[in-house]
Amino acid sequence: MKINNNFDVILSIDPGLVSCGFSVLKKQGENVFLLEYGVLKMRSSQSVPDRLGQFYTFCQEKISLYQINCLALETPFLGKNASSFLKLGYLRGVLYLISNLNNLRLLEFSPCEVKSTLTGYGFAQKEQVARFLMKLFPTISASTKLDATDALAVGLCCAMRSF
Amino acid sequence: MKINNNFDVILSIDPGLVSCGFSVLKKQGENVFLLEYGVLKMRSSQSVPDRLGQFYTFCQEKISLYQINCLALETPFLGKNASSFLKLGYLRGVLYLISNLNNLRLLEFSPCEVKSTLTGYGFAQKEQVARFLMKLFPTISASTKLDATDALAVGLCCAMRSF
Repeated sequence: MKINNNFDVILSIDPGLVSCGFSVLKKQGENVFLLEYGVLKMRSSQSVPDRLGQFYTFCQEKISLYQINCLALETPFLGKNASSFLKLGYLRGVLYLISNLNNLRLLEFSPCEVKSTLTGYGFAQKEQVARFLMKLFPTISASTKLDATDALAVGLCCAMRSF
Repeated sequence: MKINNNFDVILSIDPGLVSCGFSVLKKQGENVFLLEYGVLKMRSSQSVPDRLGQFYTFCQEKISLYQINCLALETPFLGKNASSFLKLGYLRGVLYLISNLNNLRLLEFSPCEVKSTLTGYGFAQKEQVARFLMKLFPTISASTKLDATDALAVGLCCAMRSF
């Protein structure tokens, strides 16, 4: 399904309390430019509130720097570990708040939607997705952290679905 | 265990995406004054990001109005419903962020600690806790919403443990 095309700069996040993948993509016509991608590292010796503060400041800075108007996330897979869901909820709560405070368009895609949009197959392996990303963005190397390519895959799915 | 006494105005929250109990308590010497308590209602027709935005603004306003320097929460009981933990995580993530952005002292107490501090018995019934609160704060009536008295119980536990 095509989504309403009222945004052009997408921040995508693969949230984690130790390592957060992110990417910033800009749509121009039918092109997509990769402005930045990487991983925000947080020290596990820091308290959760301190890490959420660092995460919030990091996102706010990217939003302001690139004039981001869309936030793309992957829907979480609901497993059985309540404690890890609580922690994932912390980061997602902050991301939801950020989308509200900055009037961002918030779009969520299931892992299957992301894979299917990028490779044509909803149950593609991570390696297939990575190969597609490297072909499209030659600056990405095989050594790029998986958290960063996971985030990039979601952002790109968001961009492709809005063409 | 006595906790370090470097705060005097406590905001306590009983988080929920539809109804959030809160209280604001001020310690002065060995006295505790109840400045405000109540329930923040949020419409379930609103999106989660909108509700988190409303919740964030509400807390920030109370913190600024009363010069709050401590946030008291109850530790969550980890049940089996991953989806409800994700939602609880959203609110707790925003609360952790708020404590970081405002340099608040963040203190968490288990339900058992709260009951034990207030009534002397860690497995006291909700009614026993409510009776104790009504005795201490005569403005509270039996019709006061449970979310509000739950929040007040946590705030009062925090104050009493710091004497």
